[in-house]
Amino acid sequence: MIVKLEQDVSAAEKEALIEKVKSLEYKVTTVRTQEAEYLVGTGSKEFDIRLIGNSKGVEDVHRVSDVYKLVSRKWKVQPTRISLGDGVEIGEGSLSIMAGPCSIESEEQIDLVSRHLVENGVSIMRGGVFKPRSSPYSFRGVGLAGLKTWSGVARANGIKIISEVMDVAQIEEMYPYIDVYQVGARNTQNFNLLDALGRVDKPVLIKRGISGTIEELLQSAEYIFSGGNEKLMLCERGIRTYERSSRNTFDLNAIPILKEKSHLPVISDPSHGIGIRHHVESIALATLMAGADGIIYEVHYSPEDAYSDGQQTVDFRESSEMIRKMREVFALREGL
Amino acid sequence: MIVKLEQDVSAAEKEALIEKVKSLEYKVTTVRTQEAEYLVGTGSKEFDIRLIGNSKGVEDVHRVSDVYKLVSRKWKVQPTRISLGDGVEIGEGSLSIMAGPCSIESEEQIDLVSRHLVENGVSIMRGGVFKPRSSPYSFRGVGLAGLKTWSGVARANGIKIISEVMDVAQIEEMYPYIDVYQVGARNTQNFNLLDALGRVDKPVLIKRGISGTIEELLQSAEYIFSGGNEKLMLCERGIRTYERSSRNTFDLNAIPILKEKSHLPVISDPSHGIGIRHHVESIALATLMAGADGIIYEVHYSPEDAYSDGQQTVDFRESSEMIRKMREVFALREGL
Amino acid sequence: MIVKLEQDVSAAEKEALIEKVKSLEYKVTTVRTQEAEYLVGTGSKEFDIRLIGNSKGVEDVHRVSDVYKLVSRKWKVQPTRISLGDGVEIGEGSLSIMAGPCSIESEEQIDLVSRHLVENGVSIMRGGVFKPRSSPYSFRGVGLAGLKTWSGVARANGIKIISEVMDVAQIEEMYPYIDVYQVGARNTQNFNLLDALGRVDKPVLIKRGISGTIEELLQSAEYIFSGGNEKLMLCERGIRTYERSSRNTFDLNAIPILKEKSHLPVISDPSHGIGIRHHVESIALATLMAGADGIIYEVHYSPEDAYSDGQQTVDFRESSEMIRKMREVFALREGL
Amino acid sequence: MIVKLEQDVSAAEKEALIEKVKSLEYKVTTVRTQEAEYLVGTGSKEFDIRLIGNSKGVEDVHRVSDVYKLVSRKWKVQPTRISLGDGVEIGEGSLSIMAGPCSIESEEQIDLVSRHLVENGVSIMRGGVFKPRSSPYSFRGVGLAGLKTWSGVARANGIKIISEVMDVAQIEEMYPYIDVYQVGARNTQNFNLLDALGRVDKPVLIKRGISGTIEELLQSAEYIFSGGNEKLMLCERGIRTYERSSRNTFDLNAIPILKEKSHLPVISDPSHGIGIRHHVESIALATLMAGADGIIYEVHYSPEDAYSDGQQTVDFRESSEMIRKMREVFALREGL
Repeated sequence: MIVKLEQDVSAAEKEALIEKVKSLEYKVTTVRTQEAEYLVGTGSKEFDIRLIGNSKGVEDVHRVSDVYKLVSRKWKVQPTRISLGDGVEIGEGSLSIMAGPCSIESEEQIDLVSRHLVENGVSIMRGGVFKPRSSPYSFRGVGLAGLKTWSGVARANGIKIISEVMDVAQIEEMYPYIDVYQVGARNTQNFNLLDALGRVDKPVLIKRGISGTIEELLQSAEYIFSGGNEKLMLCERGIRTYERSSRNTFDLNAIPILKEKSHLPVISDPSHGIGIRHHVESIALATLMAGADGIIYEVHYSPEDAYSDGQQTVDFRESSEMIRKMREVFALREGL
Repeated sequence: MIVKLEQDVSAAEKEALIEKVKSLEYKVTTVRTQEAEYLVGTGSKEFDIRLIGNSKGVEDVHRVSDVYKLVSRKWKVQPTRISLGDGVEIGEGSLSIMAGPCSIESEEQIDLVSRHLVENGVSIMRGGVFKPRSSPYSFRGVGLAGLKTWSGVARANGIKIISEVMDVAQIEEMYPYIDVYQVGARNTQNFNLLDALGRVDKPVLIKRGISGTIEELLQSAEYIFSGGNEKLMLCERGIRTYERSSRNTFDLNAIPILKEKSHLPVISDPSHGIGIRHHVESIALATLMAGADGIIYEVHYSPEDAYSDGQQTVDFRESSEMIRKMREVFALREGL
Repeated sequence: MIVKLEQDVSAAEKEALIEKVKSLEYKVTTVRTQEAEYLVGTGSKEFDIRLIGNSKGVEDVHRVSDVYKLVSRKWKVQPTRISLGDGVEIGEGSLSIMAGPCSIESEEQIDLVSRHLVENGVSIMRGGVFKPRSSPYSFRGVGLAGLKTWSGVARANGIKIISEVMDVAQIEEMYPYIDVYQVGARNTQNFNLLDALGRVDKPVLIKRGISGTIEELLQSAEYIFSGGNEKLMLCERGIRTYERSSRNTFDLNAIPILKEKSHLPVISDPSHGIGIRHHVESIALATLMAGADGIIYEVHYSPEDAYSDGQQTVDFRESSEMIRKMREVFALREGL
Repeated sequence: MIVKLEQDVSAAEKEALIEKVKSLEYKVTTVRTQEAEYLVGTGSKEFDIRLIGNSKGVEDVHRVSDVYKLVSRKWKVQPTRISLGDGVEIGEGSLSIMAGPCSIESEEQIDLVSRHLVENGVSIMRGGVFKPRSSPYSFRGVGLAGLKTWSGVARANGIKIISEVMDVAQIEEMYPYIDVYQVGARNTQNFNLLDALGRVDKPVLIKRGISGTIEELLQSAEYIFSGGNEKLMLCERGIRTYERSSRNTFDLNAIPILKEKSHLPVISDPSHGIGIRHHVESIALATLMAGADGIIYEVHYSPEDAYSDGQQTVDFRESSEMIRKMREVFALREGL
């Protein structure tokens, strides 16, 4: 069950409620987010919901049977909208486009990409500063210094930035510069990282694990939510299978299933999803049609010269074309 | 290499050509289809293509490096169109809708579904008469008698029928009644069946294996093509993975990749692809946007009462809605 | 439930029994094998087992809740032993070694391998005569003629032969020459083939599907058993996964799980399981230790010259070494 | 290439070497471990190895073509042995048994398990103090306090302890109490954690990722090694696949393949590998036969009452039986 507490609940009332829930043989976890305070009860005994609903300090109470409760649409029927400030919002009803290079490489690159985004009316830029290269001998990223430079340029252009955080220690140092933290596919179940992100008041985009299940993605979101942070987005980016024609297998089913199970925005990543530059557009448009609230993809002024992921990165011309089509498809979808 | 022979090539000319190709250390396979006769050479030695191209009896010659050659788009650049007669065609530029129940159950059911298809302008009906139930204690299908009845009703309504053939012996008995043979996901690599279908002059839709690769699907098509039958369609129907939220995982990447690699029409099966009735529409529309030439799905007047696959079958109301939307999405796609 | 009928049950008694089972809302399937006649009832209603057990014509009755019943160890607690004649037996308590080339190539090859087997006390030889090559341009096998030659040599040497049957039509033509039919991994769910093999009185080894589940393997065995043939063996040969270091992934868990769930002998195929010649021995010994009743592997006098599967085939020296070690490991296992 | 520097190399000699390697168009990474200092060069240009080998300060130089170099057996042919002190060693030629509960629960539990291990001559105990529960509402572990208690009891009994470290911050606080750090399957690619463990002088056991490849496991080991820590062990613990009969699929091939590719000890985890209590022994014995240098498994005085993983944990009686058999199988293997 999820009990939403009234804004002005007293300490005594809260204590009494906790005791009452425990008396029903439910384990209680207290959750305070930017929006409200909740008591999440896990258990299975049958109970009369009015026992809780009529108590002092309770704004509302819902039974939720899923393992993940706070992120479940069974509890919060209204879709979550996330504001990044300055009119930039992510959520059902909007088409959010997030584009940028795989790795932030230089100030010149940042300038060129920012200009491209501004020209095309895109408000969110992605880029990696701490790259998780699987070989210790590969490019490691521009680090915090690069993030600061990037942030300066982005803000000057009215652009919000999303970048991957790989370690708890990085959360604080990235905080002043970042607009959305990204949890990468290799860290989807890095619970210490999720815990820490739950204590931060900034949006988080969680990528599905390389071979993660949809349920694990929802549980990871639950981890952060129950830590205190409601501003979450889920992202399908392809899963690992036996198929070798593409880097990953884009699990199309994940889009409608996540939209059904959770009230959180669902983002699609076609760049990693198919990993082949000239097919990124098809995947982007298809997943939009399937219900995605946004697309996050890789763009570079010269993919052949990109430090990383060049084979799946589009150039500015392809990107502009894609943006135009995505808007048409979104419009059609909303009108169907 | 693929050598297309002239229509009026003489036996001597053909013999000479075969010898010439062999002299280049290429193994030669002769292929005669409904359309033409070919010599397919497999080997790797470098050679001057004019050696072959200038010979008597040669209409054209192409180098093709893929393991699968005849079905490769590198050889035949023009997309294949398949005619089922009476103006019913399948291929790039057309949206082919194929709908019907999982199992053919009764004449009443056939009538109701046929009427639904006619009302919605759908020309191709699917249905299983020989069902591959994995347990020996489940429903086995109405058999040949049911196929005859179905065929009669379909023809009276101007509808073409597609049904699964599970064994070589069934090919001949189904021939007078069927318009398209379907090779099921469990038989994708049943080479004896593929061989036999190569010797028949009737279209074949090949489903990707339950855990088949895209390359295997193309090789299975190559098997049939090299047996003499060019009228082939490829179908993505979801693959088996570790994910449990859905029956299969719809590999969205397969659509654009197959379209790129082969000139054959690519069909999408959202019913098996996601296996969840209320999500079938999302998958259908998304895969159309990704480039599919057609959608094959399961419909029944009362899914709850269907003998099989009820959980993924839509009813008439949902089907009509889906058909309307598919046509809108297809129109948008062609216009993008 | 499984009702085993008495040998001398009358038609009237059998009819009465069938009606009684149906009256309990159980669907009835009659199964006659080489050994006995059974009524298999599928349903879920609670019932008093003495209602059936006390009826005339009943030898015994068991409740079996698995989807697969006849092959389940919950019904037949004694492990199944299969006799190939001339003292050659397969089953718990024995170590059955089956070795031979991937493809039968020539009479010389047959002679050399037979001699190797005789020298090493191995009684069962494998070999493919109808090869399921996934490309239409590869070697197809020596066919029936080759099978006859092979059979002659084998019999002269007291060797039993196992070979893959790929199509219903081949069952009859192979019958006089074969000792064990093999159902390949691509045909595990070829239900027409399984049906037909159920009507034949000859042992069958069923390979797990390329991406088949353990349950599907058991259901395929159930198909054949319920068709009338009890002489069945299950074989784990590796499954398809994302891992690329080996051709397949040998699912070690399948060995103890199959031994627990079914009374049928369990055979391990290390050659396809790991696909790397110098590792075949490790896999063979390990799977023996895990409980396998037998090992089937590929051997050739000169693997580098083998028509197929050379990369996973051992030579005679390696084979003799392997046989010696397998016997030691088996002896230790039985003594632990 | 890997250049091992002499113990007494001078700064000038090292600088000159670095320049020489760079002049061959190789990228240079300097690696200092507990044992020695190395220059690891990545590149592909052909070069005369004597150019490097004859230089001052070079102890030896090897060409290594694998992506992972320091952990590759192509470079270091001698198998690595890791000493935990007090005569406890892990590596080829030894059978290392590591056993203990999934979670450390109480001092009483620690006492009981320690006694069991001492009685059976087992020197290494496993246990989790920081549990990575995927749901935020489950048991989280006894933490550092529990680790201290456990360490005290273990040391008093001459037992070494291995426990999972989940975050960089925990490395330092665990240091005084731990003998082996364990990197869990969800953190195999947590590169910040791997980096930090590279700077610590204590053995590390790295578990293969839930859907990790063998190559990724080797690269993760390379990360730590190149960070400065050579005391590493690789562990196969089952991978995620579509199969549902068991929690994971134990990839038997990983054992011989890892032994072949790397000089590091290879450990097998049958508890997670099959996840079914009464099958753990079969898997343990089989993987030992396949070449594993050690087995790590879960044991509890009363598995039914264990806080976590009870379904795959054995009790003391089963554990003693397993230990006896493992020693017999190991002895046979070494003698084959």
